[in-house]
Amino acid sequence: MASDSDASLLVAWQLKNKHVLVVGGGDVASGRIHHVLVAGAKITVVAPQDGLHPVTKWHIDTTPDRITYYDRVFTPADLDGKDFVLTAIDDADASRDIASRCRALKLPVNVADDPPSCDFFFGSQIRKGPLQILISTNGRGPKLANIIRRRIEESIPSHAGEAIERVGTLRERLKARAPGVGGEVGRRRMKWMADLCTAWEIEELASLTDEQMDRMLTEGWEKDVVLSPQDLGVQPAAHSDSE
Amino acid sequence: MASDSDASLLVAWQLKNKHVLVVGGGDVASGRIHHVLVAGAKITVVAPQDGLHPVTKWHIDTTPDRITYYDRVFTPADLDGKDFVLTAIDDADASRDIASRCRALKLPVNVADDPPSCDFFFGSQIRKGPLQILISTNGRGPKLANIIRRRIEESIPSHAGEAIERVGTLRERLKARAPGVGGEVGRRRMKWMADLCTAWEIEELASLTDEQMDRMLTEGWEKDVVLSPQDLGVQPAAHSDSE
Repeated sequence: MASDSDASLLVAWQLKNKHVLVVGGGDVASGRIHHVLVAGAKITVVAPQDGLHPVTKWHIDTTPDRITYYDRVFTPADLDGKDFVLTAIDDADASRDIASRCRALKLPVNVADDPPSCDFFFGSQIRKGPLQILISTNGRGPKLANIIRRRIEESIPSHAGEAIERVGTLRERLKARAPGVGGEVGRRRMKWMADLCTAWEIEELASLTDEQMDRMLTEGWEKDVVLSPQDLGVQPAAHSDSE
Repeated sequence: MASDSDASLLVAWQLKNKHVLVVGGGDVASGRIHHVLVAGAKITVVAPQDGLHPVTKWHIDTTPDRITYYDRVFTPADLDGKDFVLTAIDDADASRDIASRCRALKLPVNVADDPPSCDFFFGSQIRKGPLQILISTNGRGPKLANIIRRRIEESIPSHAGEAIERVGTLRERLKARAPGVGGEVGRRRMKWMADLCTAWEIEELASLTDEQMDRMLTEGWEKDVVLSPQDLGVQPAAHSDSE
């Protein structure tokens, strides 16, 4: 297969226990801080106070346990102990200097508005509970990614977030009942979960109660069948407000 | 803002000049190899020949310039000089051993079917030319991510890929005409591109010719206005097959 200069590897990073350096505190930096905070990272923000965007300032003030703020410009020692580096400053030479220092240290870096200096891009993002969607144009059309994002947003099934949360819980309980990673049991678990997700509507999965999960595991998994929503008396989420 | 155990940082990685280690050669490994190859990385595959999936074998045979294959199990020296590590083997203990070695070396690792060992997840992906979409459930519901992916796929505007390609070209030509990263000119460029993408339909952007781009830059950018598709005589892509 040929490579393609327009392709990236899209991944969802786990940032728990990671430490992210954000250089800059303006409008763009405030958006970066938002994404990184939601993902649970620790953050160091380095930016002179007079250039702080109100939202950046708000994040710094309201999240002192996870954001360390320095009222000054970047110094190379800021890179020590960091896992990711994001720069969003107006000085192109300073940005590129930071990017090349990161490269030397094998530290992944994103430089706002300078795709060639980036190890990774953010693209446009959607989040509905545990469902997250990244729309990337590989740095070619950020605004267009936003427009496409709005169309995609309308197509997301309602209750998709709840369905994912419920299916995730069922998967954990199944793993507790039939433990082990990989191998025969792993494959059987994967197939049973896949059959279930195919047979059920998203709205039905979203309204699965803990009691119904018990029956699903005891009467379904143990006998190697997938019970139907009707078997379990499940009401699709759209009609279940009064339950 | 509170962190959320269900959130990741979604990013699009540039893998040009990166070296990825894939441990395992089965069904799951073949999918990983596909994603990584498309993104332009070099790959080392380590897996005993008797467990190779036909697609993995096909990749190895047809991409000898970018895939180095070793017919054996993993050894720690395989991690030397790598940027990413992906494991997809049935042996849970071996997987976790590799994951902890990666952690010690600060090498990002994904372990198939073992979310707690992963630095990042793949989720479900869509690709249409330069448009790439990642649907992540943060490891909670891979099958559900697939179902949601199919619904999203139907909602993507036709010609979105071409529109992104054309807008990317326009952006590069604008940067050549009005160079500089960040600052006043960067902001003006960003606003002009955003205004254009908002005023035009995706189908119109998709059919923008090089000549129309010239006029757009000379008669539009230079006078700080955004010309309309009508101004330039653009035919939306859906009706332009005979052009």
